Amino acid sequence: MSQKNALPVTRQEDFAAWYQAVIQEADLAEESGVRGCMIMRPWGYGIWERIQMLLDRKIKESGHENCYFPLFIPLSYFAKEAEHVEGFAKEMAVVTHHRLKMEDGALVVDPEAKLEEPLVVRPTSETVIGTAFSRWLQSWRDLPIMVNQWANVVRWEMRTRMFLRTSEFLWQEGHTAHENETDAMAETLTILQMYRDFAQGPLAMPVIAGEKPENERFPGAVATYSIEAMMQDGKALQAGTSHYLGQNFAHAQNIRFQDREGQFQFAHTTSWGVSTRLVGGVIMTHGDDDGLKVPPQIAPHQIVIVPMLRETPEDEALLAYCAKIRTALIDASAFGEPLRVLIDKKPGKAGPKRWGWVKKGAPIILEIGGRDAAGEQVTMIRRDSLYGEDGRLANQAMHWESFVGQAPALLDQIQTLMFCSAKARLDAEIRDDVTDLEGLKAHFEGSKYPGWVAVDWCRPTGEALEKVVEQLKALKLTIRNTPEGSAPASTTCFFTGGPAVERVLLARAY
Amino acid sequence: MSQKNALPVTRQEDFAAWYQAVIQEADLAEESGVRGCMIMRPWGYGIWERIQMLLDRKIKESGHENCYFPLFIPLSYFAKEAEHVEGFAKEMAVVTHHRLKMEDGALVVDPEAKLEEPLVVRPTSETVIGTAFSRWLQSWRDLPIMVNQWANVVRWEMRTRMFLRTSEFLWQEGHTAHENETDAMAETLTILQMYRDFAQGPLAMPVIAGEKPENERFPGAVATYSIEAMMQDGKALQAGTSHYLGQNFAHAQNIRFQDREGQFQFAHTTSWGVSTRLVGGVIMTHGDDDGLKVPPQIAPHQIVIVPMLRETPEDEALLAYCAKIRTALIDASAFGEPLRVLIDKKPGKAGPKRWGWVKKGAPIILEIGGRDAAGEQVTMIRRDSLYGEDGRLANQAMHWESFVGQAPALLDQIQTLMFCSAKARLDAEIRDDVTDLEGLKAHFEGSKYPGWVAVDWCRPTGEALEKVVEQLKALKLTIRNTPEGSAPASTTCFFTGGPAVERVLLARAY
Repeated sequence: MSQKNALPVTRQEDFAAWYQAVIQEADLAEESGVRGCMIMRPWGYGIWERIQMLLDRKIKESGHENCYFPLFIPLSYFAKEAEHVEGFAKEMAVVTHHRLKMEDGALVVDPEAKLEEPLVVRPTSETVIGTAFSRWLQSWRDLPIMVNQWANVVRWEMRTRMFLRTSEFLWQEGHTAHENETDAMAETLTILQMYRDFAQGPLAMPVIAGEKPENERFPGAVATYSIEAMMQDGKALQAGTSHYLGQNFAHAQNIRFQDREGQFQFAHTTSWGVSTRLVGGVIMTHGDDDGLKVPPQIAPHQIVIVPMLRETPEDEALLAYCAKIRTALIDASAFGEPLRVLIDKKPGKAGPKRWGWVKKGAPIILEIGGRDAAGEQVTMIRRDSLYGEDGRLANQAMHWESFVGQAPALLDQIQTLMFCSAKARLDAEIRDDVTDLEGLKAHFEGSKYPGWVAVDWCRPTGEALEKVVEQLKALKLTIRNTPEGSAPASTTCFFTGGPAVERVLLARAY
Repeated sequence: MSQKNALPVTRQEDFAAWYQAVIQEADLAEESGVRGCMIMRPWGYGIWERIQMLLDRKIKESGHENCYFPLFIPLSYFAKEAEHVEGFAKEMAVVTHHRLKMEDGALVVDPEAKLEEPLVVRPTSETVIGTAFSRWLQSWRDLPIMVNQWANVVRWEMRTRMFLRTSEFLWQEGHTAHENETDAMAETLTILQMYRDFAQGPLAMPVIAGEKPENERFPGAVATYSIEAMMQDGKALQAGTSHYLGQNFAHAQNIRFQDREGQFQFAHTTSWGVSTRLVGGVIMTHGDDDGLKVPPQIAPHQIVIVPMLRETPEDEALLAYCAKIRTALIDASAFGEPLRVLIDKKPGKAGPKRWGWVKKGAPIILEIGGRDAAGEQVTMIRRDSLYGEDGRLANQAMHWESFVGQAPALLDQIQTLMFCSAKARLDAEIRDDVTDLEGLKAHFEGSKYPGWVAVDWCRPTGEALEKVVEQLKALKLTIRNTPEGSAPASTTCFFTGGPAVERVLLARAY
């Protein structure tokens, strides 16, 4: 029964190769043949659909309405927002023509069909949504405007990696306009909390929420906040961002209103987003050397029933038994929703099918053979505790009604245990006893997966900050964020020796 | 209380202007400033979200899995499928560059950043999904492959109209591969029934399902089926299509498998889709001179409570009363889901707010003032029967608990009545007593909104069909489809005088 390491490579051997192996073996996604774009297969896209459904509910409950804005943005819209476009490094897909034609038997772009103005495929939608806001907004009574869209965006990345950095990706982008800084900053922080709770809830992925340093701000933003998750190789993954844009975009796009005194004011705006990158975060937070583990709340199927079919007439009774169990499970509910249960009826032997679901990371697998059915039993495998103390595959036989009765609590428990396990790792892998650059260098060069380091600093700006960033860059490190609510433990800035005002997290990052 | 015709123009005066007025007054969508692309605002996008949610359930229940494929398709992929690309008239958005740059203070496309191979923004995804199928498919055991994606697509339309024909639109596209023609044709027709039932169910929009004539087939298809809905100006709207592609795409894309005898065979494929065009169909099926009427199953809010706020301290008690009613309504369910209820707390007078919701077409509006609250009453307005026999706005006062008790049945009844009303119109507006081209001409030129005409024909092909199409084109008519299960009423073809084999529907169309 024992088959450790269902994947061809372990996390310890080569984390990057392991990541690719999980994506392939769990049928999450594949290369598309189109540069930098992937195909999300049903299990990978199913996880994204769950993320989308659960987060969309939170976005709506907090007063935002979904809209849909155009894929294409005229080049001139970007010219208005110089700082924004500068920051985006201008790597964008540009539509210049609108027709193909046949020429000497070959299909070519028709040079006659050149657009008067090139259209940029949206890398983000501040410019086009801001233009709409400027039309919608007249009076303070129209505020706040709070919209969100689920959409695909394109950034022409030179080096791509599935889910983490693809030329096209799926995301939600929220955009809001407010009467004053107080309201806009409250919104920015509300969303930061929503992202943190969502990551730590449905994704079971512990994160540190906090403000990014000046050099890591979104182009054009006054303040950028992020949630940062720690992957199992110790690198940080920026998993979501929330930006207070001040009046910068409002000035550029003329988002104005008459205030309570009848004076014209520029609105204060925010924007915020999470993307399919979260799926990459889930893989690198929860995967092990047997493949992925999907937290029950976002698993497309929470329980997979694998009947041990023999292509004999007895199969019919076995499938009927499985169907009875599935029906009883669907009538139960976990996390306020009906359980999601699949009977895997595909042809093939039970063993490879079981390992297929282990690699995909279905939280609970039920193997049911003729003998189980005769004895009204099921044999349960928990993905989160696959092996017993003897190193062999741990399975547990029980009466099917007993399983149905405990399934909701079990899924709830698995969700919690997955979070706790990842949280313990995060806490253990943040060091705060490094006192100087030499020590920092020794730490990061002395360990394969060195985690993060927290230091106190004086929050330098301008050239002083640039110098710090350069020092860190030499160690391949970046400043992740200033954790909310954390006070400096010492009085001295790690970098300048000046007075410390806050803590910052240093890490290698995706 | 009476205020007939909340819109500035009636259907009878100018149907096209009325359509635009509904979209504007009901805040469904607006021009974006980007050629041919619209912005879907919360109420319009909310209707699409409901359509998407309900149809997605049906798609999954019938065994399809959602995936996501790239937005960009390399030009060379199209070259493989000559007939397909020919049919698409080659009007597509083409990405040729991947970078912008600053030049003399202006943002321009960087000529250095030209792509080696142009990328087409998908107009539909047969080519890229077929290429994936060819990788996924090895053996008959892998069949059927049944996938669906929700995505945006772009077709460079010269003349656009909101929801009906936009350069970018949202849709679902299903793609399947099967072992043989029987299975693939069964799938094609299963989907046709699903679309018909979906249109006639949640959209309350009666349709005629049937096969399109040869000249109206999807490029590359062996057979194309459609559902056709009748708009209130008598024009037909093709509201969904299901295509049997035979082995044409399989040959072009090498979608092959080893059959049960070990021989290589090409798969039989299908594709099918519906789009945001359905929202246009809902508008032109159910709208009236006061705006939109949204069928309860797809209404983002089924019941809107308008408290008559006075900006006095009494408002608080009034809002608490509204909240109590809302909570009781949400605990009830209609169509197997909790009721969707909004309390409209926005500032403003109750009268204009009421008419705002009338124009948006919320199925039930509750107006609640201080006196209602004191008497535990609500005042109900039904959007589907807005005026009484006296021509005045019909409202009905009742105890709030009585309303809560009857709300689910009332929504169900409204849904049914809306369908029946549209069905009666469809049935009344299909004539089958026109016997020759002169009669056809007289009918279509003699009436502002002439509906459809059913005739018997011999199902001509090739040149004979072309001649028929030309004759109809002169009358601005097209052949919509051959209604399923309809037999010819006569023995003679309307066009050729030869033997009739089936009925076809003739209509002007969107």
